[in-house]
Amino acid sequence: MASGRPRGESNARQQLIDAARQRFTAQTFESVSIRLIAADAGVDAALIRYYFGSKAGLFEQMLRETLQPVLSGLKQNHHARSADKQPDHSDCRIPERLETLMRTYYQIMAPNPGLARLIQRVLHTERHTEPYQIVQRVFDDIHNLSRLWIQRMLVDAGHIRPDVDPMLARLSLVSLMVFPLLAPPAFMENSGISLKPTDIERLVKHNVNLLQRALFVAEPTGDVEHALTTTQLRREPSA
Amino acid sequence: MASGRPRGESNARQQLIDAARQRFTAQTFESVSIRLIAADAGVDAALIRYYFGSKAGLFEQMLRETLQPVLSGLKQNHHARSADKQPDHSDCRIPERLETLMRTYYQIMAPNPGLARLIQRVLHTERHTEPYQIVQRVFDDIHNLSRLWIQRMLVDAGHIRPDVDPMLARLSLVSLMVFPLLAPPAFMENSGISLKPTDIERLVKHNVNLLQRALFVAEPTGDVEHALTTTQLRREPSA
Repeated sequence: MASGRPRGESNARQQLIDAARQRFTAQTFESVSIRLIAADAGVDAALIRYYFGSKAGLFEQMLRETLQPVLSGLKQNHHARSADKQPDHSDCRIPERLETLMRTYYQIMAPNPGLARLIQRVLHTERHTEPYQIVQRVFDDIHNLSRLWIQRMLVDAGHIRPDVDPMLARLSLVSLMVFPLLAPPAFMENSGISLKPTDIERLVKHNVNLLQRALFVAEPTGDVEHALTTTQLRREPSA
Repeated sequence: MASGRPRGESNARQQLIDAARQRFTAQTFESVSIRLIAADAGVDAALIRYYFGSKAGLFEQMLRETLQPVLSGLKQNHHARSADKQPDHSDCRIPERLETLMRTYYQIMAPNPGLARLIQRVLHTERHTEPYQIVQRVFDDIHNLSRLWIQRMLVDAGHIRPDVDPMLARLSLVSLMVFPLLAPPAFMENSGISLKPTDIERLVKHNVNLLQRALFVAEPTGDVEHALTTTQLRREPSA
């Protein structure tokens, strides 16, 4: 998409993405106009069509590019294990990976406090609407990658307690990670947790320690090398 | 309020509460009219003024009466401990109380899927608005009772792990309990959890087991009898 773009417009694309993030988190999809975003970005509205095709295209690209580090974190874990040919039976790397994933998530979401609620709001609307279908498409990727992450990291490698349902484990992980962004600000103040970096670090450590004690066995039972091979061969069902 | 009410209207009050719950969870506070709720309830609009004073009064009463079993659950734990003069050092009652509290919460919230989002939505609006101040008033009670509950049940009685921050423990408890009601329906489907009674029971058991392993010590260190006395004397700060 970068090839063939007009010279001198190198920042325009990013400015449009940033303006779109502001507008779409503050207003409904329907009430946001291409003209409004272009004015916020200080660029010509024709560049939205040029770079993104339409308002819907810009909305989708804004979501994908903003969430990219989380998607990339879920994939990196995947690739790191695939590339790593040495069997690894220690469970000390799982909490570290979980910690990195959570920290990445908060680093993206904390500066955009309306983003988690935008996603939630749209995914509670009618399924046939355009914004629903866009958000759902982006989230299909996250659902599939997170399901694969849980399967490979926790289940196949034998890290998860045998009495814990892996899909309930994922729900708990997501609940602990996402709720602080959806919670009423007064409740968070009351709990003594802001979305400033030092508080986020406390929250990340607390969540990881909690999940480690609650969901993981002390000694993993699985063969990580075997788990990697079988998971690579298996196709995950679509979300 | 019940004394002096018109005869033959015994169901009207409850019908108004039920109609208000439907309307306020589906629409914004501003867009709901007294006339609309009265029509839904099949009663005269004058009865809203009679029973609740105003639309705001009906909104607050609807919230208080709907959430009553949770408030009552938080208080019952309080009273049960106060009345119970026998020292109790076993930690087996804490998970049971936690389980009852969570089950009560889901029993109220599951039949009213918009209620958790209504509360969240209003508490994210401007603090000077009328609906914000009403919801905040109701939630001040819940904040204070839940803080007292955590303090008495977990901290004073020595059930909580010494390395766990009690306010982060409360945040985790609320995250695990509330997020399933705020989560996008597609995510919950994808996780294999509905809000049907059998799934709720699975979720309650999973959450309580998780919290028990993550937050509680195996043997409580505190003196429950002493904890009760000191907590009764201490005034909790306002939320």
